[in-house]
Amino acid sequence: MRADVPEVFVAGVGMTRFGKQPEASLRSLAEDATAAALGDAGIAVDDLEAVYSANAVAGLLTGQEMIRGQVFLRGLGLDRIPVINVENACASGSTAFNLAVQAVAAGTYEMVLAIGTEKLSHPDRMLTFRAIGTAVDVERAADGAGASHSPFMDIYAAMTRSYMERSGATQRVFAEVAAKNQGHGRLNPLAQYGGTVSVDEVLSSRPIAWPLTLLMCAPVSDGAAAIVVVGRAMARKLGREHVRVAASVLTSGTRPDRAEDIPNAVARAARHAFRAAGLGPCDVDVIEVHDAVAPAELMALEDLGLAAAGEAPALMASGATRLGGRIPVNPSGGLLARGHPLAATGLAQLCELTWQLRGQAGARQVEGARVALAENSGGWLQDDAAVGAVHVLTREVRA
Amino acid sequence: MRADVPEVFVAGVGMTRFGKQPEASLRSLAEDATAAALGDAGIAVDDLEAVYSANAVAGLLTGQEMIRGQVFLRGLGLDRIPVINVENACASGSTAFNLAVQAVAAGTYEMVLAIGTEKLSHPDRMLTFRAIGTAVDVERAADGAGASHSPFMDIYAAMTRSYMERSGATQRVFAEVAAKNQGHGRLNPLAQYGGTVSVDEVLSSRPIAWPLTLLMCAPVSDGAAAIVVVGRAMARKLGREHVRVAASVLTSGTRPDRAEDIPNAVARAARHAFRAAGLGPCDVDVIEVHDAVAPAELMALEDLGLAAAGEAPALMASGATRLGGRIPVNPSGGLLARGHPLAATGLAQLCELTWQLRGQAGARQVEGARVALAENSGGWLQDDAAVGAVHVLTREVRA
Repeated sequence: MRADVPEVFVAGVGMTRFGKQPEASLRSLAEDATAAALGDAGIAVDDLEAVYSANAVAGLLTGQEMIRGQVFLRGLGLDRIPVINVENACASGSTAFNLAVQAVAAGTYEMVLAIGTEKLSHPDRMLTFRAIGTAVDVERAADGAGASHSPFMDIYAAMTRSYMERSGATQRVFAEVAAKNQGHGRLNPLAQYGGTVSVDEVLSSRPIAWPLTLLMCAPVSDGAAAIVVVGRAMARKLGREHVRVAASVLTSGTRPDRAEDIPNAVARAARHAFRAAGLGPCDVDVIEVHDAVAPAELMALEDLGLAAAGEAPALMASGATRLGGRIPVNPSGGLLARGHPLAATGLAQLCELTWQLRGQAGARQVEGARVALAENSGGWLQDDAAVGAVHVLTREVRA
Repeated sequence: MRADVPEVFVAGVGMTRFGKQPEASLRSLAEDATAAALGDAGIAVDDLEAVYSANAVAGLLTGQEMIRGQVFLRGLGLDRIPVINVENACASGSTAFNLAVQAVAAGTYEMVLAIGTEKLSHPDRMLTFRAIGTAVDVERAADGAGASHSPFMDIYAAMTRSYMERSGATQRVFAEVAAKNQGHGRLNPLAQYGGTVSVDEVLSSRPIAWPLTLLMCAPVSDGAAAIVVVGRAMARKLGREHVRVAASVLTSGTRPDRAEDIPNAVARAARHAFRAAGLGPCDVDVIEVHDAVAPAELMALEDLGLAAAGEAPALMASGATRLGGRIPVNPSGGLLARGHPLAATGLAQLCELTWQLRGQAGARQVEGARVALAENSGGWLQDDAAVGAVHVLTREVRA
């Protein structure tokens, strides 16, 4: 595999506010995110040559399958160019971005859109939970019902308990992650939540599946995020040579025989991505990780090589991962505070990192950020994420 | 858009028999097609670097969404490499192939698998019809219920009536197409149907929506088809430099203001594909088109430029499109006889054309075939296919 993509750039990013938006439709969310990304790139709808459209649950929640992107984007006239519908659980957005990057790297197109659109909120909450639950092997999941309403929260809770055993992490450190990310989210006008939340408030919120409490889990969200991807010549023409895609790596999961010493999907993706970018964990200035639950942020930092095994709680305790720290993690508020509209999440992470690299992140700006990394994971197979996605973006000094 | 992909080859193809296969699972179908394609390429599972997996209706029929490819292919260990889930209605398979070609053209991977897997047969036949009906904008479709059980058959019937008006085609010529393709299918051991069917038998079969009768419509099918896609260096190493991908083009549909003089999605895809391949309609030796209904074969030939507007019935009557004729169309039996497991169809067309270009098509061989074209279309927007896909494969003289 070759993961370096030296001639691909992020020309424009845009996202809707994330949150429960009963008044919004999948179509209006997709239109709003697209308009924002096109505006940011300084281009018109007709300049786009193809769309890579991610969505995870609309089939089950609305009955629309097969041509979701064409339907969502019809109002913009984007049903006249190739629309490729992509699905990869919570990593659907990163998968769409990966395909967009590949298409431009191949020279097939000069300018394409990657978009993730999701409306999770639904009058029937159980329908939403059941839809989210299809990110596992549903035949196997039917064999055993867990403690929570979601197979995912049961899986995350079990992973977390195992992590606590091997790292000595306490429930309190997970609450500290949640409080940190709510604090970051307070600085993000597009975040669903965000505010001053105390560690004790997190600990005393409703128990979900031990040790997870409600405020340690990403909320149900609606939203869309979109990115215009271009080659170097087009980036130059548009004056958008600021943010380069230095690596784009997808993996899927499962480790043979559940061997602990074989790196998981995210760790494998990270190794490829760093090698491709010619960079290492110490070079990264700002990170967005997939904190679908608070402990996942710590586990991700270890998988990415930013902390040694079992050392992420100490890194967190040192203050390094807060805004103002050595390596701010989830400055956007992460999934916990920004929200988690499944297929939009991976692209929202890349929107945030683009703003960070351009110095446009306002009150949550990481000063002088040059190298940014996004980790997005999705679904679950027997012992690992079904999808691990790692992207590295860099600020171009020439730009 | 650049549609030429000069360095991408088909290294191996494989498909299951198509047909109603109540004993088969999505998993067994995917495994069988993959094993056949890997065997044909002379490679092992571990040689693959990524999988582009297409499926259209399993979400609605089985409840499995989000990570369908990982689940279908888990038994082979293919859940350890990137699996990208693709959905584009009846053109899902061609879309997966297009992405696979792009990934190799980009240099991201040297060897990938494109696979389409579909199980349409279900104890509840209405559930199958409802699932197939999600290839349109379901909100709009809910506004009006048609004569048949399927919005698709109503759309095809209306298109056919309009085609009859402008071309003078009779119902009988559509029956002749169906009888021809059943005759071709008789020579294909993997076809669902195929046999000696008379034009009168087609005409007297159950009416679906005028002028379509049952034998003019593709059946409900289960099946999978898979293709190993490689770059030139790998093709040479494997001794599989015979079949080159000369063009791979996707479009989506809708024509502004329904203007008749703006070419439809398939016609636009064909123009791009011929330009990219440096070839024209007269260079094509063998064709597979999307005959989801018999009249669609004639309309496709006109969209592709193989017959002038309104002239496809005369081309058909001349015998040119039969095996042994000047330009055999659907030698495999097409969707009508080979069957139409939605996401598998586009890849099955490319399997057939690969066998034709290699001289391995047995009793249905088109002698000396050098240039082959596949047309696959999917879904429906207000006035056009939601997806049009055209691929051109060529036999390499050097190989």
